[in-house]
Amino acid sequence: MATMEEIAKVLGISKGTVSKALSGAKDVGEATRQAVMEKALEMGYSRALRKANAPRIALFITNIEYLQPDDFGYDLVTGFRRAAETAGFAVDTIPLTIPMQLETPYDTYIAEKGYCGGFLLGLSMVDDPWMKDFETCKTPTVLYDNHVSSNPKVTYIGTNNQEGMDFSVAYLKSLGHSKIGYLSSELTAYVYQRRYYAFIQAMMECGLPTDPSMCGSAHHVSECLTLHLPRLLEQGCTAIICSHDVLAHSVMVHCRELGLRVPEDISILGFDDVPLCRYTIPPLTTIRQDRESLGRSAFHALTSQMNNVRVSSLLLHAELIERASCGPNKK
Amino acid sequence: MATMEEIAKVLGISKGTVSKALSGAKDVGEATRQAVMEKALEMGYSRALRKANAPRIALFITNIEYLQPDDFGYDLVTGFRRAAETAGFAVDTIPLTIPMQLETPYDTYIAEKGYCGGFLLGLSMVDDPWMKDFETCKTPTVLYDNHVSSNPKVTYIGTNNQEGMDFSVAYLKSLGHSKIGYLSSELTAYVYQRRYYAFIQAMMECGLPTDPSMCGSAHHVSECLTLHLPRLLEQGCTAIICSHDVLAHSVMVHCRELGLRVPEDISILGFDDVPLCRYTIPPLTTIRQDRESLGRSAFHALTSQMNNVRVSSLLLHAELIERASCGPNKK
Repeated sequence: MATMEEIAKVLGISKGTVSKALSGAKDVGEATRQAVMEKALEMGYSRALRKANAPRIALFITNIEYLQPDDFGYDLVTGFRRAAETAGFAVDTIPLTIPMQLETPYDTYIAEKGYCGGFLLGLSMVDDPWMKDFETCKTPTVLYDNHVSSNPKVTYIGTNNQEGMDFSVAYLKSLGHSKIGYLSSELTAYVYQRRYYAFIQAMMECGLPTDPSMCGSAHHVSECLTLHLPRLLEQGCTAIICSHDVLAHSVMVHCRELGLRVPEDISILGFDDVPLCRYTIPPLTTIRQDRESLGRSAFHALTSQMNNVRVSSLLLHAELIERASCGPNKK
Repeated sequence: MATMEEIAKVLGISKGTVSKALSGAKDVGEATRQAVMEKALEMGYSRALRKANAPRIALFITNIEYLQPDDFGYDLVTGFRRAAETAGFAVDTIPLTIPMQLETPYDTYIAEKGYCGGFLLGLSMVDDPWMKDFETCKTPTVLYDNHVSSNPKVTYIGTNNQEGMDFSVAYLKSLGHSKIGYLSSELTAYVYQRRYYAFIQAMMECGLPTDPSMCGSAHHVSECLTLHLPRLLEQGCTAIICSHDVLAHSVMVHCRELGLRVPEDISILGFDDVPLCRYTIPPLTTIRQDRESLGRSAFHALTSQMNNVRVSSLLLHAELIERASCGPNKK
């Protein structure tokens, strides 16, 4: 937990100015106030940002233990908190468990705790009981990477998966690949469904053949590796697109164990651009999701909902990050 | 053009307060300032809102002559201007012509005039030369109802067409219809393509048959009426969904001329909820696009772009507005 002195030192201003900015004094300019608030938040000086009467937002996370600085969720949550807290909202981060969802309906939970809205990360369409509640809930709600149709109070936020797959397939095609395989986590997650369909559509639009035997999905990464990867290699795939980076990394490791060189013998492409990608061997070519911007946009979508601007979906642009795991097709 | 006295009278505050609010005096609260700014804008007191050094946004409209209070674009433009001008931006409304687009590339036009971003309404994918420019432009840009893939600086804003068609088809199915036809303006416009595909998908998801002979599109409304409508009626359609309200209205009039009663003999459903829909005979059941919110969201997406939050698409929820042009299937 930083002190006001430390914040003042980093920003090169006086402690008095920091104190005034944090207490909302009138003689501190808006730009300074915002700079102080953001730095205070970044440095963990959060108590000062949290007025007793600030409107409160519930931020639910299913796998809170993963919220380390290297995890995908970290920057997303930071972006959300930063936008919310500088706008005068308090954000409570709440681990979301299945027993808790079974015990209390979503709207009831929100009402009992006095939240003005909810932002939810990491839900499974199949496992999480609240997914049903979102179809009819009255609470302004934003779901990251999950889509609920027809409830005007719920917004889906994410990255444009179609654009991401269009970039991936076009890039591999430009390297001379045409036999492109696809490996995925289980398609019960909304985002993996979308990416799979997006892959098929991207292949068709590039005039490349798609064949069910060149695609595979499984709940566990290990199943993907033992059940599907050998088949894709036997079919002559020269490149494999994976539904997310963690799977792509495992596929690279497994290919090397099978005696294949990446990218000389096989090109591998991920999705997400988690921090890990820079450090895999070789560094992973992938599709970037701008996590900080996703968090900020989620906050904006939520305040829109609170103001009766009923955002259905807000998708950010995808970006291809070229590293070293894809190369020219030499076959 | 309203005076300060008139604004003061409408808001029930003193002229002095209005004057202070418009000049940005410190001793007027933020809520009052915003209320005065919004009312001033609404009442046409726009000169005062326009500071000489305000950042400027270009709002391009292809059919500026249609910008009457009853037109679809009016509330959208008003929502955009209101959000932008209360945030301190000046908005120039510019009629967009084809010669102008041929003469000056988009980015050049923006740079020469010193705009910080552009919002464009009513473009045609085929006719407007700038559509090509948007694929590579560097200007923060928001397109209403037009999608350009893969340029991170361009955002598509609109209403969730899939949701709209899901509502329409499910509603007609609940009234006992299964032979549902579809009439559309030319599919060269992005939004009409999306709606047509969305219709097909909604029919499939409801388990209803789709048949190309039950669908028709044409550039002119008259062609739809003479070329396609008779065929749909011969095929036994008991309901027709139209790509937009103006077409739906013409179809209703034409059906009556053919001796059919709406909705007793045939149900008609529109899309957009233009102000006209309340006054057609019978009043038209349709899908509402929240135009004011679309305008506000377009401004937000544009400022996101200016802050390097690269929004790909922002879609609002659709809403079914039940009036009197659809009834139970009696066949």
